[in-house]
Amino acid sequence: MKKNHLLAPGPTPVPQPVLEAMAKPLFHHRTSEFESHFADIRDGLEWLYQVNSDVISLASSGTGGMEACVSNLLSVGEKALVVEGGKFGERWSEICRAYGVITDVLTVTPGHSVNITDLEAKLIEGKFSAVLIQASETSTGSKHDIEGVSQAIKKVSPDTLLVVDAITALGVYDVQPENWGLDAVVTGSQKALMLPPGLAFVWLSENAWKRTEKSNCPSYYFNLEIERKSQKKNTTAWTPAISLMMGLKVALSIMQEEGLENIYKRHAKLSTSTREAIESMGLNIFTKDLIAECLTAVEVPQGINGKDIPKKMQSDCGVTIAGGQGELSDKIFRIGHLGYVDGDDVLVAVSALEKTLLELGCKFEKSVGIAAAQRSLLA
Amino acid sequence: MKKNHLLAPGPTPVPQPVLEAMAKPLFHHRTSEFESHFADIRDGLEWLYQVNSDVISLASSGTGGMEACVSNLLSVGEKALVVEGGKFGERWSEICRAYGVITDVLTVTPGHSVNITDLEAKLIEGKFSAVLIQASETSTGSKHDIEGVSQAIKKVSPDTLLVVDAITALGVYDVQPENWGLDAVVTGSQKALMLPPGLAFVWLSENAWKRTEKSNCPSYYFNLEIERKSQKKNTTAWTPAISLMMGLKVALSIMQEEGLENIYKRHAKLSTSTREAIESMGLNIFTKDLIAECLTAVEVPQGINGKDIPKKMQSDCGVTIAGGQGELSDKIFRIGHLGYVDGDDVLVAVSALEKTLLELGCKFEKSVGIAAAQRSLLA
Repeated sequence: MKKNHLLAPGPTPVPQPVLEAMAKPLFHHRTSEFESHFADIRDGLEWLYQVNSDVISLASSGTGGMEACVSNLLSVGEKALVVEGGKFGERWSEICRAYGVITDVLTVTPGHSVNITDLEAKLIEGKFSAVLIQASETSTGSKHDIEGVSQAIKKVSPDTLLVVDAITALGVYDVQPENWGLDAVVTGSQKALMLPPGLAFVWLSENAWKRTEKSNCPSYYFNLEIERKSQKKNTTAWTPAISLMMGLKVALSIMQEEGLENIYKRHAKLSTSTREAIESMGLNIFTKDLIAECLTAVEVPQGINGKDIPKKMQSDCGVTIAGGQGELSDKIFRIGHLGYVDGDDVLVAVSALEKTLLELGCKFEKSVGIAAAQRSLLA
Repeated sequence: MKKNHLLAPGPTPVPQPVLEAMAKPLFHHRTSEFESHFADIRDGLEWLYQVNSDVISLASSGTGGMEACVSNLLSVGEKALVVEGGKFGERWSEICRAYGVITDVLTVTPGHSVNITDLEAKLIEGKFSAVLIQASETSTGSKHDIEGVSQAIKKVSPDTLLVVDAITALGVYDVQPENWGLDAVVTGSQKALMLPPGLAFVWLSENAWKRTEKSNCPSYYFNLEIERKSQKKNTTAWTPAISLMMGLKVALSIMQEEGLENIYKRHAKLSTSTREAIESMGLNIFTKDLIAECLTAVEVPQGINGKDIPKKMQSDCGVTIAGGQGELSDKIFRIGHLGYVDGDDVLVAVSALEKTLLELGCKFEKSVGIAAAQRSLLA
């Protein structure tokens, strides 16, 4: 017998009350019953986003939410600046290209955060309709200083929209769409929201809503204006993913009970304790500059095949972590600690990692990692 | 205490083993575990579709699947012929217009099926890249003769693709994409597949796959070629709706146990018994020509506010049926009997309808409807 533990940077574990809410008999969505639930959900999403205007729910994975931003806010032939510091930065570029949006790329070395001076230089150089960026680049564990990026844009190119993929950031650490002057913020259900994948969420600023009127890219299923009209009436334009929405209502209420401040503190503690455990084993954290508290990205020690670490942790310990993606596939591994994760989960992950690395031939004192994690958790 | 009964034309009731499968702890999708489940799912979908090639799964509602057909198969400025016999026919036109596809409309009076001679005349008149149609028009209960439509296209305009919305048809009555020479067939999870909404499925013919290479409409999240490459390897390009996929595996196995022939016979019996019950109460079936076995559409009796019927059946009897949509909103009501529905459910629906109509002032002998339903079920 071996218990399973999901410690990937998404999907994340789903709390039992959320699983149970999704397992209730189905009911029809064109009813006052659904409208009443959806009104609560909309309030909860505004609370989570720290905003006073509509957060649009979409029945898709997070990539659909990213596409909605591009197809609703930009036009064919317009120029967008993409901050590419990993796989999800690249995804912004791919979506832009699919829609005929011209992309200029500000390349950030994977594991690093965007340099605001470099960004300002790019913005002065060319006139961009939008900057597309990740709050947290899930493939590297890097956090970009979104507030600083927004200030830079306001200073040197105030007509440029700031479009933020916050899929592994929102509900993990503080992101303030309205206070920081962001224009579009996307998230997905299978991260901090503690749900299975299948829902995406998009908030737009008033400026961004105005921009949707000018966009000439086609959109139908992901047309945010069509959805906004319906969602203001507590219904959806297309059939909603009813069971996931019922889980969402419960997940939001669990988050509201914990409170945003506590949620952010918990994730910070999980991040610190994981990092300290890793370093105590003599391993190197891959992420330089700002570390996103959603995951810990670790360099694979020399002499070890990077893919063996997640594989062995899964097969021998029942612990699911993630390897690297793309070019980083055998160079790093990533331990997720966002959503329904607590200190005990970090201890389990660190214990499995210790066991695995020792068996793969790494040299460090047995229990040094878990002891460091425990000290950090108790600090 | 009043039990709830969902008898809408979607969403439909979800069997307990499917609910339980969706309520299991989440696991990661980039694993051999998911790949193994997805291999079974892909086999099951090919069985359901009666095809020997890929059925693509999408994390979206059925409308997303419809959009995928338009954006992958057609190009800006190309002409498409839309058969519009109700709200979902109109949806094809709306999606085409959103993508700059020029639509010509063959209007079919709501409640009627397309006349093949009229269709041939249209096809001879103009050169169309595709014909877009519903197998079953959910807003009216009409079935179009898709095999006949396909033969007409092959005869007079063989280069025209036939794109079929079979969202309330597939798994209800016989639709044979390969044998009938169809080019694209869409369905969704919340109908015959007995799942919550949140998944769409698209099958394409070899000709249609070739057409995707020529399409100049943008697509990314709904890019079928990107998905096909991944799904051939038993994974998905974007994050799949994992819990719904796990429910899908169980739902498909339940359907396979019943067998397609029995599934079709069951739906035919439910359709006949509902219709005979309705007629025995002196009401008129709205659908003329071919009746789709997924639902029974009924004309609201004179002197009654059409919206009162579903409302009162819901509030007094716990039975969810659907009203009319758009212009038909107070003229018809629709009893769904597709998916996880049996004869007992029809008896419950008819009983609630009798009670409701009598209380609203209709004149017929008490129990005449349920007696007719029972006789039909026992026939």
